[in-house]
Amino acid sequence: MKKLINDVDTIISESLDGFVAAHGDIVTLGADHKFVRRKTLKQGKVALISGGGSGHEPLHAGFVGHGMLDAACPGQIFTSPTPDQMAAAALAVDTGAGVLYIVKNYEGDVMNFEMAAELASGPTARVLTTDDVAVETSTYSTGRRGVAGTLVVEKMLGAAAEQGSDLAACRALGDRVNQATRSIGVALTSCTVPAAGTPTFKIGDSEMEFGVGIHGEPGRRRVALAAARPLAEEMVESITRDLESTTGECLLLVNGFGGTPMIELYLMYDNLRDAFAKRGLAIARSLVGNFVTSLDMAGCSATITLLDDELARLWDAPVHTAALRWRM
Amino acid sequence: MKKLINDVDTIISESLDGFVAAHGDIVTLGADHKFVRRKTLKQGKVALISGGGSGHEPLHAGFVGHGMLDAACPGQIFTSPTPDQMAAAALAVDTGAGVLYIVKNYEGDVMNFEMAAELASGPTARVLTTDDVAVETSTYSTGRRGVAGTLVVEKMLGAAAEQGSDLAACRALGDRVNQATRSIGVALTSCTVPAAGTPTFKIGDSEMEFGVGIHGEPGRRRVALAAARPLAEEMVESITRDLESTTGECLLLVNGFGGTPMIELYLMYDNLRDAFAKRGLAIARSLVGNFVTSLDMAGCSATITLLDDELARLWDAPVHTAALRWRM
Repeated sequence: MKKLINDVDTIISESLDGFVAAHGDIVTLGADHKFVRRKTLKQGKVALISGGGSGHEPLHAGFVGHGMLDAACPGQIFTSPTPDQMAAAALAVDTGAGVLYIVKNYEGDVMNFEMAAELASGPTARVLTTDDVAVETSTYSTGRRGVAGTLVVEKMLGAAAEQGSDLAACRALGDRVNQATRSIGVALTSCTVPAAGTPTFKIGDSEMEFGVGIHGEPGRRRVALAAARPLAEEMVESITRDLESTTGECLLLVNGFGGTPMIELYLMYDNLRDAFAKRGLAIARSLVGNFVTSLDMAGCSATITLLDDELARLWDAPVHTAALRWRM
Repeated sequence: MKKLINDVDTIISESLDGFVAAHGDIVTLGADHKFVRRKTLKQGKVALISGGGSGHEPLHAGFVGHGMLDAACPGQIFTSPTPDQMAAAALAVDTGAGVLYIVKNYEGDVMNFEMAAELASGPTARVLTTDDVAVETSTYSTGRRGVAGTLVVEKMLGAAAEQGSDLAACRALGDRVNQATRSIGVALTSCTVPAAGTPTFKIGDSEMEFGVGIHGEPGRRRVALAAARPLAEEMVESITRDLESTTGECLLLVNGFGGTPMIELYLMYDNLRDAFAKRGLAIARSLVGNFVTSLDMAGCSATITLLDDELARLWDAPVHTAALRWRM
């Protein structure tokens, strides 16, 4: 294992110290590294909190700030944060309009956010993200996994909360965005979890994992390494087969898992865009980059969200976080 | 070699097609993929053009836009663009105040930009970046290499040009920023150039290349894999030993080479910041991410720029490009 670290036990705390020092205009750190919170809270706004295992950076701390999250709770690598962390975050950022938890659908996360909600003194609600079409149940999840589409939910909900939507409206919107969102991923290499020290899974030089999860967990099947264009076709086919309709406009997020260079991500974006267009889906909004990663895993995912005027407007709304910034 | 590509010969063109499609609000593409240019030019502004081999994305095309570059010329991977490309870009973006080329100090780039300047009909000037303290001459360069500090030069010059500085003032400022800037890099793994198909260099499981170049070219020496904190100490020592003064404020850019996750880059930022502070350098501005990459190489570089009020103000000025955005 070759990593820029000191001690496996201090990776998260040192990295968080660096993160808040680098982005001190946007975020501050909770006591004992329990959470990263927005520096300046907006009174009376629904507080949006997400979190999950570390190793997916910039998700979630990179999305804390104006127009997106109020707090993010980082667990150990690929391990859910504790209810105690989530409750402390809620206490810190609830300004009277209640707390909405945005939770990726993994059993540990779901359970711990439920316990946190029980600890809360004020009103809470939850949006569960389940955008991964690869498999119906998986290593850590019952039901579909929440993956890169979580970014889209966080962005659109962030805009709505910023604009004054109440807790019930935010929850309903979050469910609606999640329903409009589908993802599929492919891995060329495994990630290596520092505490394990060896790759999570073995994969041959001429193999890919189609439908891989963001923890390197198995997807649909192990397939032969394909060129980008037929791979893009298969990814798009997996997504569109799952949609009732493939007309209209959509947002396309091409997300790198951490080990794949931008030159390949933009090439995949080009090929995916063509494949979606052939099926009648026009790409009206785009995002390309490493946003929901799996440590050093090579590969990428495609996420689409079917847009209507409201969702497009929420996507376009100003955002100012460490990892996403526009119109401010 | 495991890469998301179709054909080695079409990687650049397909990736550029994706890039301009994803960022059509900011850039357009020149004929025959010769250059990426700013969509909306500002009349009478000095035109800033950079370029170089591909494989360092988002450098340079990712820095085309308001407050930074007017055009970027992408060569083949790790290969200089041609004078023809640079001349075509100059013709497209010169709005009457002349053209300033920002050139990383590699022999091919220097020669080709010189030839492009000879082809130009209007006034031209050049800023050469030479920020890498690792070695005095290298595989592709006579004199110090230009590496991640090029981003800082492009950002500050971009702000000055946007604010109306003329060609001579821009050139002088560019030289001043380059003089105030130092970088050092370290690689944990090699990159793999698609046309070669195998890693550029061999490196053992417990080795690092200290002072590596952004093409995977040799640095100062091959050393044993170190923990992040002693590594940060050695990187900072290499930089500060090269400075006349280590008091005052500086910008710290922690740049990933492509294969290292953000969690490690922020950890390195934390450790580097401590090491600079011990030597009297306070970090007043920060940037952490994959900006000047070497395809899929694991590792990172540290860049500092000594700031005065003018340089800090130019760094803070609005920028709107694919890869850097703030205050607009």
